[in-house]
Amino acid sequence: MTEKGKLIVISGPSGAGKSTVVNTAIQGREDMCFSTSVTTRSPRPGEVDGRDYFFITPERFREMVERNELLEHAEYVAHSYGTPRAYVEQQMEKGFNVILDIEVQGARQVREKMEEAVLVFILPPSMEELRRRLENRGTDSADVIEARLIRAREELKEAPLYDYVIVNDKLEEAASEFAAILKAERCRTAQRLQFINNF
Amino acid sequence: MTEKGKLIVISGPSGAGKSTVVNTAIQGREDMCFSTSVTTRSPRPGEVDGRDYFFITPERFREMVERNELLEHAEYVAHSYGTPRAYVEQQMEKGFNVILDIEVQGARQVREKMEEAVLVFILPPSMEELRRRLENRGTDSADVIEARLIRAREELKEAPLYDYVIVNDKLEEAASEFAAILKAERCRTAQRLQFINNF
Repeated sequence: MTEKGKLIVISGPSGAGKSTVVNTAIQGREDMCFSTSVTTRSPRPGEVDGRDYFFITPERFREMVERNELLEHAEYVAHSYGTPRAYVEQQMEKGFNVILDIEVQGARQVREKMEEAVLVFILPPSMEELRRRLENRGTDSADVIEARLIRAREELKEAPLYDYVIVNDKLEEAASEFAAILKAERCRTAQRLQFINNF
Repeated sequence: MTEKGKLIVISGPSGAGKSTVVNTAIQGREDMCFSTSVTTRSPRPGEVDGRDYFFITPERFREMVERNELLEHAEYVAHSYGTPRAYVEQQMEKGFNVILDIEVQGARQVREKMEEAVLVFILPPSMEELRRRLENRGTDSADVIEARLIRAREELKEAPLYDYVIVNDKLEEAASEFAAILKAERCRTAQRLQFINNF
């Protein structure tokens, strides 16, 4: 069945376990893919154009913004990143659910440009647990961890923008909730109008 | 966890397999219950007040309608039936998902009175298959089957009122979709605002 796929936006504090939840949920599934971003930065060794990113010039990036060809875009460390609408829509037309892991500001832009996108916020069970996870990861200094915790609290205020909230306490349960959201969203009436009309 | 439950309204043509799908999906679950209706008809042998129905007088029924105490109500064969809002809300407060199997007109009333109710329409895969199922059931005359098919076509026009559409082609898949909808609805942001606010 080549039912049109959905765009699934995921956000959540660093340390919430977003990628682990999503990867556990979609393991072995052939109807899922990740979005590929455009960026103005140069490829790093090993990065492949069209797989890791679409590498484009700043001029082309500006043009994409002006022509409304990006679902969302942002600047990081003097480079621009964005999500190309045409690419995402092609993948959806092929039947893929496209996963887009972005921050809250990006999610808000997506919501404005593609109302039917499904927005999922992934949370740790508590601030204490978030701190524990960031500390156990061992990749961040104490200062960076404090900054991440403050930021998590800020991001949390934006949760009402999202359609769903998953609390990643037990990984298996969180992954199963994510899978349930994917399955339920495929049953949305809007998704099945064609079937109904042909009935 | 005593998270508040949801009201799940199911509708669909006779022969679509609504009860089979729902019963398969909720088997062994302790967080589900069926709504109990009020009715003005007399109890039949074996029926228990408060279990099969709440048996009430026509006066009390009118009062409930006037006081907006029913989520929906309808007349069948000179008797009145309705869904008592207070009972449904009590069950939801206890953490139960309450299932209400009603026709399209009732579903529309529920939607108006309880916006957060989840409406699920259950369909057979085709009109031909619906006819086959009704014939195989062997309980209806040819005339009754024709009437049910005409009615199914009418009901189908109301599907856009519903949040979800499940096509009951393979029972296991349909039941798994119903279970996914229940799980996903528990992850709705509105459902988890209290958790977010306490974070």
